[in-house]
Amino acid sequence: MMHYIGIDLGGTHIKAGVTDDQGHVIAKAETATLASRPYQDVARDMAMCSLKALEESGLTLNDIGGIGIGIPGLADNVTGNVIFCTNLGWYDIPLRTELQKYMNLPILIDNDATVAGFAESIAGVSRGLHSSVFLTLGTGVGGGIVIDGKPWTGAHGVASEIGHLTMEIDGIPCTCGKSGCLERYCSATALIYMAGEVCQNNPDCELMRRAGGDIKNITGRMVVDLAKEGDEYALKIFHRYTKYLAIAINTIISFLDPEMIVLGGGISHAGQFLVDAINEKLPALLMFKTLPYSRVALASLGNDAGIIGAAMLSRVGLDYTE
Amino acid sequence: MMHYIGIDLGGTHIKAGVTDDQGHVIAKAETATLASRPYQDVARDMAMCSLKALEESGLTLNDIGGIGIGIPGLADNVTGNVIFCTNLGWYDIPLRTELQKYMNLPILIDNDATVAGFAESIAGVSRGLHSSVFLTLGTGVGGGIVIDGKPWTGAHGVASEIGHLTMEIDGIPCTCGKSGCLERYCSATALIYMAGEVCQNNPDCELMRRAGGDIKNITGRMVVDLAKEGDEYALKIFHRYTKYLAIAINTIISFLDPEMIVLGGGISHAGQFLVDAINEKLPALLMFKTLPYSRVALASLGNDAGIIGAAMLSRVGLDYTE
Repeated sequence: MMHYIGIDLGGTHIKAGVTDDQGHVIAKAETATLASRPYQDVARDMAMCSLKALEESGLTLNDIGGIGIGIPGLADNVTGNVIFCTNLGWYDIPLRTELQKYMNLPILIDNDATVAGFAESIAGVSRGLHSSVFLTLGTGVGGGIVIDGKPWTGAHGVASEIGHLTMEIDGIPCTCGKSGCLERYCSATALIYMAGEVCQNNPDCELMRRAGGDIKNITGRMVVDLAKEGDEYALKIFHRYTKYLAIAINTIISFLDPEMIVLGGGISHAGQFLVDAINEKLPALLMFKTLPYSRVALASLGNDAGIIGAAMLSRVGLDYTE
Repeated sequence: MMHYIGIDLGGTHIKAGVTDDQGHVIAKAETATLASRPYQDVARDMAMCSLKALEESGLTLNDIGGIGIGIPGLADNVTGNVIFCTNLGWYDIPLRTELQKYMNLPILIDNDATVAGFAESIAGVSRGLHSSVFLTLGTGVGGGIVIDGKPWTGAHGVASEIGHLTMEIDGIPCTCGKSGCLERYCSATALIYMAGEVCQNNPDCELMRRAGGDIKNITGRMVVDLAKEGDEYALKIFHRYTKYLAIAINTIISFLDPEMIVLGGGISHAGQFLVDAINEKLPALLMFKTLPYSRVALASLGNDAGIIGAAMLSRVGLDYTE
């Protein structure tokens, strides 16, 4: 059986792992990214981290069918270059060429949300499904589309930027330069912003107390915990947030109608409480109210999703690069 | 070489045609739908119309590989039933079973916009492309997604309802029961509505004059023609409309990043003038401004798209029913 190496390149940590052909992690290793270094040094440590995991797995490079990499950015799998990766300050970096100096194997690189969504469809909650859309609800909103069991990255590699669908014409300005992007309404950042507004108008509320009287201390977790406890203000915030999220999920259904929509990222730790709130609001939004629709579920792979998805990416290939 | 029958079932007309395996129309026939009749009568006329085209083509049912049908509604290709087709007042109609009484061949049924978009990808402007999204800009906005050269109708058959993506939270109420749907901003109806607002505030404008002083007479064509002539008010309306359409197109790019986005329906008759307006506004909206992006093009098949797409549907099959 062939095995695969998956590398999860983050702004702070490099994680690498060896998986079998079903995406089960056999061994893994981790090191600091130290993003301000020259890319050659980061690439060398990505290789060293991978080789360490490989050694631990008891396998050799001859057992490895390919290497996949998830990056917080965009790559061109024709050239093997990272087009950009803002967190690392990388623009047009020949990552594949650099890594192949250490491990001369086929290498595919893709966006981290795409990779994590693909991981779920191989070994997680959407395992084996023909189509799914993964949403990371974190600082921003990332997306990962799986079609026909393969990651869909689009004709120019820029698909599944679901955080930047327009949800409001001339809406809240976004870090991307546009206005009204979905992530301005559905990210953890958005939830915290809505909570800040409520606290400003209700400085005596319990949420403000837990934040030590300072709006800057509010976390998504605080809002969710208080909402679960039944706090009136926290529930109001949470209902507003899940209203927006339900609209976003309905937009995904109206567009692609996948078998499943998988929620990951910080806000997904709200668990079934979040899924219940979505399922309560979604039916009223559906275009075809009497038909079955996409299941909404929580991501199940946690921190290993990046390694698993990257490894499986190298096994399965991409639609446009196979 | 196998040939195929395509039927375009509309609220007023039934069109049927025989095509070769590349979607070239060999013969066609047409008859009135008379939608208020029992469905059995409509189905019989669909069959008669098909058999008439077949006779004209000089072929027999033995030469036909399958039959495809485009409907202004939704179908279930497992049962072969039309789930609903509002224009015809059809709910859960066994169309395949009924038609097979006359022509005992495999039959696939799909939404008319999906079928028209698929036709373009077989024999029209998006011919041979791996992925495309078709938009009909008419009374509403219909969508047709082609992925991997096949129509994408989703896991539950409700995909590509692009007219009902939410473009504005709590926006303009839509006929579907939701608010802020894309078609409330991007359909011909929306353009006419925007024109009405401008005329109301500027009763002396040229558009109002052409409408004979009655807002109810305004057509999309009038606005487009006057905008092409450089009329200030018409240009203002047209720029507002194309701003919304550019946002919608960018949302399609951010979601799926197809090779091409094809514009059809009434408003697409504005031609290159429309494409130019989109191409002028789109770059500022793109997430990745330095990368190539989906080409925007005009549909090229006109009235035969329904027949061609339906016929080719029966040749190629659907993702979930093949």
